[in-house]
Amino acid sequence: MKLRVDLLPHGSYPDVVLVIDALRATTTAVTYLERGAQALLLTSTPEAALALRGTRDHLLLAGERGGLPIPGFDLGNSPAGANTPVLGGRTVVMNTTNGTGAAHIAAQSGKHVLLAALTNAHAAARRARALVTEGIAIVCAGTEGRVGLEDVYTAGVLAEYLLAMGEFTLDDGARIALTVRRGAGDPGEALAGSDHGLYLTTLGLGEDVRFASGLSTSTVVPTLVRGGDAPEGTLHFVAG
Amino acid sequence: MKLRVDLLPHGSYPDVVLVIDALRATTTAVTYLERGAQALLLTSTPEAALALRGTRDHLLLAGERGGLPIPGFDLGNSPAGANTPVLGGRTVVMNTTNGTGAAHIAAQSGKHVLLAALTNAHAAARRARALVTEGIAIVCAGTEGRVGLEDVYTAGVLAEYLLAMGEFTLDDGARIALTVRRGAGDPGEALAGSDHGLYLTTLGLGEDVRFASGLSTSTVVPTLVRGGDAPEGTLHFVAG
Repeated sequence: MKLRVDLLPHGSYPDVVLVIDALRATTTAVTYLERGAQALLLTSTPEAALALRGTRDHLLLAGERGGLPIPGFDLGNSPAGANTPVLGGRTVVMNTTNGTGAAHIAAQSGKHVLLAALTNAHAAARRARALVTEGIAIVCAGTEGRVGLEDVYTAGVLAEYLLAMGEFTLDDGARIALTVRRGAGDPGEALAGSDHGLYLTTLGLGEDVRFASGLSTSTVVPTLVRGGDAPEGTLHFVAG
Repeated sequence: MKLRVDLLPHGSYPDVVLVIDALRATTTAVTYLERGAQALLLTSTPEAALALRGTRDHLLLAGERGGLPIPGFDLGNSPAGANTPVLGGRTVVMNTTNGTGAAHIAAQSGKHVLLAALTNAHAAARRARALVTEGIAIVCAGTEGRVGLEDVYTAGVLAEYLLAMGEFTLDDGARIALTVRRGAGDPGEALAGSDHGLYLTTLGLGEDVRFASGLSTSTVVPTLVRGGDAPEGTLHFVAG
């Protein structure tokens, strides 16, 4: 079985794809579902998210650009700020700078698309292992076309869990991610010391960085549902 | 002073750029100049290299696609096979799958463009340190759009040398490269165990992989010369 890590989204994917944007989109997605959201709709642009407003009941719009909330949206992209009274039973429309785009790239060719973060790493690895027949690709969203330490570190954590669950042949991306996982300190150090972690801290969002560093604190794995009633151009995820 | 590592070519560059394609283009470039070639002309396509044939005396065409020599070229891309009787006094026109393209991207915005490999790592770092006023970018060529362990490892070696020569603020790429340098074994292990090292070995080119693993065995730093008489669209490098 092949295990591949793309340090940035690239090319076409095998049957199972784990998409990572640890700071913060996939961590937030896990948390929204954990805290009662019924479903997530990932759009490819903020405009596509705004266009959904009013098309169905119980929608919340969530997202960021450059780390900051998008004007006209209900929520930012804060996992630490997610709470059940707001989210319970709602469908959250999400659009973020990097993570939702990476999910769209993955969904073009991947069969099973899962969202992964440090917070659901063990559950996401188990789910991937249970689904795979061909190969697993872990896709790091990065930050505006640049490789992000937090995503590579998270990919290394997932790869480590997967290697404990079975035999895989690795590519260079997986070798790099595993080496980073083993050499870059504990999750809190790695995320807080990454470029994007430092940037979020300067925005006053250090609590999100700490939250995102929690290792396997959730068993929720956002899972792409195909062929449902999701609006054209959106990806429909539910808790798996 | 900033030190940035691009795990793949990306964006615009500061005043000093070190371009790495350790397996094998930049290792070969160092060796050609070390063994007597007068200059290198890097083209952006094989066709551009072939079109230079006959336009001036003493040209040799060298390059590869998918690791194999290009039909109509005089030489492949083998550092271990480079020898002085063939190269002495000649200008070598080079085109390779990844390395020459990365050099062209770097030259679009970088002021001082140097070619670096493990074999000239210390000399290349010293030259970069001597030239820099703004920042240094280390650019990994990768392999057909995928990050290559051999390039990231080499970037980590260069970063380590640079950090021993002065203070730098690092980006995530530099943090990842340094972690890989420290965690991925000695140069021979890292290169031989990389995807492209394994592929070259299956092609019978293991001697090139061993040659490319030699750490700081040369003091030649191929250096871009601007405004000379190089043909349009080619990059002119000489030993620096």
